[in-house]
Amino acid sequence: MASASTSTDVAKTKANEYPKIAPGGGLILAWQLKGKKVLLVGGGMVAAGRLVNVKDADAHLTIISPRSGLSAEMKYRLFTEECVEVYHDRSFEGESDLYDPSGKLYDMVLTAIDDSDLSRSICQMARKLRIPVNVADVPPECDFYFGSLIRRGPLQIMVSTGGKGPKIANQVRVVMEKAIPENLGDAITNVGVLRAKLRERVPEQSSSPRRMKWMIDVCEKWNWDQLAEMTEEDMDKILAGWSERKSPSYVEVRGVRKAYAPNLHSIAKRLFAVCPVVGYISPWAAGLMGFASGAGVAVGTIAFRTRRA
Amino acid sequence: MASASTSTDVAKTKANEYPKIAPGGGLILAWQLKGKKVLLVGGGMVAAGRLVNVKDADAHLTIISPRSGLSAEMKYRLFTEECVEVYHDRSFEGESDLYDPSGKLYDMVLTAIDDSDLSRSICQMARKLRIPVNVADVPPECDFYFGSLIRRGPLQIMVSTGGKGPKIANQVRVVMEKAIPENLGDAITNVGVLRAKLRERVPEQSSSPRRMKWMIDVCEKWNWDQLAEMTEEDMDKILAGWSERKSPSYVEVRGVRKAYAPNLHSIAKRLFAVCPVVGYISPWAAGLMGFASGAGVAVGTIAFRTRRA
Repeated sequence: MASASTSTDVAKTKANEYPKIAPGGGLILAWQLKGKKVLLVGGGMVAAGRLVNVKDADAHLTIISPRSGLSAEMKYRLFTEECVEVYHDRSFEGESDLYDPSGKLYDMVLTAIDDSDLSRSICQMARKLRIPVNVADVPPECDFYFGSLIRRGPLQIMVSTGGKGPKIANQVRVVMEKAIPENLGDAITNVGVLRAKLRERVPEQSSSPRRMKWMIDVCEKWNWDQLAEMTEEDMDKILAGWSERKSPSYVEVRGVRKAYAPNLHSIAKRLFAVCPVVGYISPWAAGLMGFASGAGVAVGTIAFRTRRA
Repeated sequence: MASASTSTDVAKTKANEYPKIAPGGGLILAWQLKGKKVLLVGGGMVAAGRLVNVKDADAHLTIISPRSGLSAEMKYRLFTEECVEVYHDRSFEGESDLYDPSGKLYDMVLTAIDDSDLSRSICQMARKLRIPVNVADVPPECDFYFGSLIRRGPLQIMVSTGGKGPKIANQVRVVMEKAIPENLGDAITNVGVLRAKLRERVPEQSSSPRRMKWMIDVCEKWNWDQLAEMTEEDMDKILAGWSERKSPSYVEVRGVRKAYAPNLHSIAKRLFAVCPVVGYISPWAAGLMGFASGAGVAVGTIAFRTRRA
């Protein structure tokens, strides 16, 4: 697609092919917190939500909040689940609190406290020290916003309305959750394992494009339910296809008989799998198919009864 | 929910109420780039994708890349669309390139070049200077990852698999896109306008919880189609309800007759709107309804013909 010889004139004729820039959004990212230290100032309900966000991302977490201000969830996380690395039972004391005991700056600072003057001053200190900061409920004091989240194992989906409609963001999240099968997390986990096995077997950097292509082939041939059911044994059979430049399908790996042997639920799902992305069917298509089969059954029943009468 | 008197013992009994921490994810964020300066090193296809990401988020963008290495899209963005603030037709030269002309550090650095040694050294410089950095395709040199995105006006949805299954992330994006109505962006924009009008009318900080509650009421009473159709005139009528502690519904604002007058498409949508979140219906429910109506029509038709015969 990209070639050095493509002239600006050619580029011009392609104008309609490229998506138009749509200003006004945020830059949606998956910030990496593994091995990073996060400071959270606050202990209320909002702080407990932040705690879950950063612990879900494997951060090393320090919390500063007087014990008297801890919400029930915060108490549970701190003293029952014990998922927080460092807890200081006191208020925020000043710039020195932005350094961990080893004298290193924290990698991220979050505040969720009612004192808006203190929030503002923490934000200013963090910015001066180039620490990414989020002050709950005060957009101008946030380098980043949080959104409404869905999690299924390694799958994470975030819905953001840039603060314009938090309630709608939540409604959208509910719609998304319904549209995504429960076992999709397992499917992605298995794809991750297969990918790691492939990289182990064909480690050369030069094979990277072929590896990517092959993985895409597998994901196109195996639907989400099949990927979720994939065993280590299946993976070995699939990997055996690499040298012959083949990516065996579910039926090729398991045999036709086995492929149609699973439980009623997966048969039903397979029957409904008419859309390109298997496992999801548009309500319109479902309604139409329902209409046709309803009419069929009615006509059939009437014909049968008429003949018997 | 959060009260200072809640004891640790009470918190313990609530253990099952709280979601379990699910490690292994990223911290999904909407990074704010309005008024921020971003440096992008590279001019190929991947760089063009990064350009769209950061310009969609209103960043001030500087690109460093020899003209000979520009992809067709990059040429289009630079010379036809002219959406990039600063372009340097040269290679990256060293640490001084991480400062803008005024001597200020860039707020974010992205690289998308083939030279992995140069990438690594840019990453190290950026980290030393505490600039968030992303090196395309080299996860350990990324403070953050990008994901698969959906955009509908102010609505942004990101699908991330933490690098485990990029192909599946794309398939999920396609499913999401089908599940979300086209006009949802308009609905959110209108909610944003209504919210701003409300804040103008009732600016007191002390009213913030009541404002939030009232906005939620409106979003629950007006479905997405109705919100998308909402006019300034409608908004004034809704806002008139604030002082009486009412949030008028679509029917109350437009009158019943008008509410049922719109085009066939919205009537069909309203008929199908049996789910709590209006505008989406599960394929199973649609199939069932289709089946019932198919059977009904068949029986009706046969009965009618039989009587005529």
